[in-house]
Amino acid sequence: MRVPVGIIGAGPAGLFLSHLLHRKGVESVVLERRDRAYCERRQRAGVVEHGVAEALRASGAGERMDREGFVHDGIELRFGGRGHRVDFPGLAGRHVLVYAQTEIVKDLIARRLADGGRLLFEAEATAIEGIDTARPRIRFTHGGADGVVECDHVVACDGFHGIGRASLPAGALTTFEKAYPFSWLGILADAAPTSDELIYVHHPNGFALHSMRSPAVSRLYLQVPNGTDPADWPDERIWAELATRSRLDGGGETVNRGTITDKGITPMRSFVAEPMRHGALFLAGDAAHIVPPTGAKGLNLAMHDVMLLAEALGAWHATGATALLDAYSATALRRVWRAQHFSSWMTSLLHTDPSGTEFDRRLQTSHLEHIAGSRAVSTYVAENYTGLPRV
Amino acid sequence: MRVPVGIIGAGPAGLFLSHLLHRKGVESVVLERRDRAYCERRQRAGVVEHGVAEALRASGAGERMDREGFVHDGIELRFGGRGHRVDFPGLAGRHVLVYAQTEIVKDLIARRLADGGRLLFEAEATAIEGIDTARPRIRFTHGGADGVVECDHVVACDGFHGIGRASLPAGALTTFEKAYPFSWLGILADAAPTSDELIYVHHPNGFALHSMRSPAVSRLYLQVPNGTDPADWPDERIWAELATRSRLDGGGETVNRGTITDKGITPMRSFVAEPMRHGALFLAGDAAHIVPPTGAKGLNLAMHDVMLLAEALGAWHATGATALLDAYSATALRRVWRAQHFSSWMTSLLHTDPSGTEFDRRLQTSHLEHIAGSRAVSTYVAENYTGLPRV
Repeated sequence: MRVPVGIIGAGPAGLFLSHLLHRKGVESVVLERRDRAYCERRQRAGVVEHGVAEALRASGAGERMDREGFVHDGIELRFGGRGHRVDFPGLAGRHVLVYAQTEIVKDLIARRLADGGRLLFEAEATAIEGIDTARPRIRFTHGGADGVVECDHVVACDGFHGIGRASLPAGALTTFEKAYPFSWLGILADAAPTSDELIYVHHPNGFALHSMRSPAVSRLYLQVPNGTDPADWPDERIWAELATRSRLDGGGETVNRGTITDKGITPMRSFVAEPMRHGALFLAGDAAHIVPPTGAKGLNLAMHDVMLLAEALGAWHATGATALLDAYSATALRRVWRAQHFSSWMTSLLHTDPSGTEFDRRLQTSHLEHIAGSRAVSTYVAENYTGLPRV
Repeated sequence: MRVPVGIIGAGPAGLFLSHLLHRKGVESVVLERRDRAYCERRQRAGVVEHGVAEALRASGAGERMDREGFVHDGIELRFGGRGHRVDFPGLAGRHVLVYAQTEIVKDLIARRLADGGRLLFEAEATAIEGIDTARPRIRFTHGGADGVVECDHVVACDGFHGIGRASLPAGALTTFEKAYPFSWLGILADAAPTSDELIYVHHPNGFALHSMRSPAVSRLYLQVPNGTDPADWPDERIWAELATRSRLDGGGETVNRGTITDKGITPMRSFVAEPMRHGALFLAGDAAHIVPPTGAKGLNLAMHDVMLLAEALGAWHATGATALLDAYSATALRRVWRAQHFSSWMTSLLHTDPSGTEFDRRLQTSHLEHIAGSRAVSTYVAENYTGLPRV
């Protein structure tokens, strides 16, 4: 198969790139090793930055998002039994949308198929060849047969464990990593959300997050030690611990209980690979970088990457200009490092570090109290959380 | 000797407290183990927060400060060969004064003596007794003779190594500490300052600070490893390293050289002792807390402590009210922890941590670049550096 752009991975990044390129008249193919049902089912992030929502809308793929998603004008930071609201429009002039990543994936798959886009599910990329040439190839298997995509550019949106990053020559990448001494235990529950907005809780026992998927489905998280077995967390223990960590002065129940339909552990990791391009191969999203989920930046970074790539590939196809393609890695990495810093900052602000000293814990408390009284620091949170227009 | 308030230490805190109490009609004595010439000579901080300068002025002790001190409307943060100015009045509505601590000490000694205040130099406090009673005593030696101060309240402004904190019963204090893996090499030089404003430099080799004492005297610092021997830093090496770390894109000389008249090492430490009161004994300034010097908070915290104590002791003498005395420790500690956090934040932002990872260094770079483009974070710096009116 001969196609200008070969994309590996039908997550939100690969699908959005294919869609954006189509709108510029550049055709592509998306190879996805899983089946469509799996892609449309996997639970991931749910907070969409203002600018990413605008880009989806401008591309014609935001109709259901605007109908079913929820505009969030703030978040609550809760600690010491009190809540502090960060007012997004008042501080940053923009908001976020709460709309599950899995819904974005459904919308983009439907849209690509309606536009005649080539999406190959259960098509596993097995090799990326010739990335130092002008005619790279992706070898893949599909339905028991071998196939090859011949293209001008390959974009790997195939996640942290994908073949994309692994296909670069030894020594071409510098990697940066940080592990965190805690994980998240996450649940989906058939229960009305605690609040209309997300609540980020710091408690001596650890972090908690109240989020939602819909007016009837809550998404809730608890900080737990690394290596935690979800079996050690029966439903009753989860609800009790959520209530303990989230308690407000004056008491009262702060969590709505319901049937838990999903329970899982999310490790916390920071990872960056540089550069994000080698010859004709471009890395985007989790293939190049992982952030801890505290800042809600993973999905958004991936979407920003492919927004840059769509512009750059569009320019190359329109005029042969290589400037944007050449600038891609450095431009994307500026936002990646900003998001890494913000995510690390939010993580250390809100979690209880089991290896931290009492001195560290007092600094953390002072920092939280300062945010509650400081328009400047609240503005920093609002601007970074809703997404910086330019980095 | 019988006097309402016994003060140990004739640094700026002890002297200012004695002066403020005098203005409220409360007499005190200040015991200082060094001689007057030593107190008036020792080199310490030089940045006075807006609110502290106002308090000195309001007390009638700010005349020479206002005549000879320098209003600073900003600082420069320099990194990556570029400077970013933080505009204090524009961002925080206030400024700082650059006026050496040693000059404040001279002014307050002169003022106290002119007002007939009791300052005993070369008077070493040897014991503090009866702090659990209403009639505590300070035993001291002076001119070869033993003396005793009988008072209602003892205030220990006698620094980190003083007898004040050591006089609390075992178990009465909780202490918090952090050591930093670097120190400052500081010099005084007969050279015009690099700039009209302070320059805080981050460079891969480490931190540097350009400060001043007067239009003809520079105060300059370099981050060096702990345990550094100043003898390993001949003058030429210091000037060359200052130039290297401070170089701007486009080159040009960035440091004015001159005769170095003082050279010393400052270790970096964070320390807090809680509570800051036990019975009739109150701790103020370095006796209770040490900050790393990066945020210029040490002198200012000490002055805030005694401003609180002057109000509290004044109220007790006027009406017998104990509310402010009872609130002193908690009120002072809120500012202490805020200053610890800001000082730690400035320190980690600007220094090169020899034990840091490459990931940490990239976050640091992203953080610095963000400040240069973020009014919100620049406002955080301006508000904290010039001194928060209320914490």
